[in-house]
Amino acid sequence: LNRIKASGLKLRFCTNETQATREKFVKKLQGMGFDISVDEVTAPAPAACRILKERSLRPHLLVHNDLIPEFAEIDKANPNCVVIGDAAENFTYANLNEAFRVLIGMEKPVLISLGRGRYYKETDGLKLDVGAYMKALEYACDVQAEVVGKPAKMFFESALAEMEVPPQQAIMIGDDIVNDVGGAQRCGMRALQVRTGKYRPCDENHPHVKPDAYVNNLAEAVDIILQQL
Amino acid sequence: LNRIKASGLKLRFCTNETQATREKFVKKLQGMGFDISVDEVTAPAPAACRILKERSLRPHLLVHNDLIPEFAEIDKANPNCVVIGDAAENFTYANLNEAFRVLIGMEKPVLISLGRGRYYKETDGLKLDVGAYMKALEYACDVQAEVVGKPAKMFFESALAEMEVPPQQAIMIGDDIVNDVGGAQRCGMRALQVRTGKYRPCDENHPHVKPDAYVNNLAEAVDIILQQL
Repeated sequence: LNRIKASGLKLRFCTNETQATREKFVKKLQGMGFDISVDEVTAPAPAACRILKERSLRPHLLVHNDLIPEFAEIDKANPNCVVIGDAAENFTYANLNEAFRVLIGMEKPVLISLGRGRYYKETDGLKLDVGAYMKALEYACDVQAEVVGKPAKMFFESALAEMEVPPQQAIMIGDDIVNDVGGAQRCGMRALQVRTGKYRPCDENHPHVKPDAYVNNLAEAVDIILQQL
Repeated sequence: LNRIKASGLKLRFCTNETQATREKFVKKLQGMGFDISVDEVTAPAPAACRILKERSLRPHLLVHNDLIPEFAEIDKANPNCVVIGDAAENFTYANLNEAFRVLIGMEKPVLISLGRGRYYKETDGLKLDVGAYMKALEYACDVQAEVVGKPAKMFFESALAEMEVPPQQAIMIGDDIVNDVGGAQRCGMRALQVRTGKYRPCDENHPHVKPDAYVNNLAEAVDIILQQL
């Protein structure tokens, strides 16, 4: 990471985290020794805010309490769309009905989802993720959600816009064959898969996605990138 | 109704009601003057019980409290399937995660849904119906629910089995072009659509379903049926 920064290359961290603000996320990584600041992080909530502003959308929010500060500057009066994130304990019967009523009351319902995950594991067991509740609202209102977050094209486009870099001049490094590699490539970027973290050997036989190269770790990815400058 | 009963024809009432037991449903209709008893009613919950028994399934229930008595005789220990109904206030975050964990823990998840409704209206506003929560669990577990209730084939088959009548000798009378008429016909029955209740003139141009005949009301349907005896 320090070598990339020293080289003068522009850098963004792309995460699908929606249970907390970027501030919290960055503090965690700083605690682990990473040189990272909030304005280097692309996450679904700020990407959604960008879209909301561009399209003059005023959201009804169904998100985690800890994420609400990300939407502080957004006009939320008289909503004309619904934004759903991993709301966890906020996924109550009343809150779901409320979000549904806002949606069904629109002439053309607009549902923006901060991810499409099915479920995830916490210390007290498996939990339904935002994707499941997104499907419930999609079915009830006969709409298709617009998904922000990896692997959505507009998520990578947000990151590129923030760096002011065209996709041909950017490279993605990630461990997730579909969300990281596939998503970035569909956006016109090149992508390296690191053989760490989520990586599994069967990824190398993926039916649709083929990385531009494999690397054994982040350091090796940096070597390759700096060699080509 | 009295004329059909006097003729000696067998009769069943088919409802998609899943927020209460048949007892409660029957009391309501008796109060309106109908000659009806509990054992003449086919509803999703008893139809599900029939399936559970046939396939030795032990359900984890995510249903309305008032519906639980319908499952009194069913073994629910160590569940090997999930039954979901319109649970209303019971659709809490905790209950949905629990039903999900039971499903995802199975080698081959079995999800039985007492309907596929999107939403319905109550005095305090629109509410998400069982179909929306069914979709959430389907997506999270990558399964397809088996739907009991109209228009599912096995729902009509349950009603026929209870009467011990083959489909060719049965006729459905209903106001819902898809749930009543279409469902019964797909099961090999003939079906009349009454031009009352849910009926709308545009039903007569339905792209897929064509009733065997239209009648202006229930009395006219009875006339036709009794003439053909």
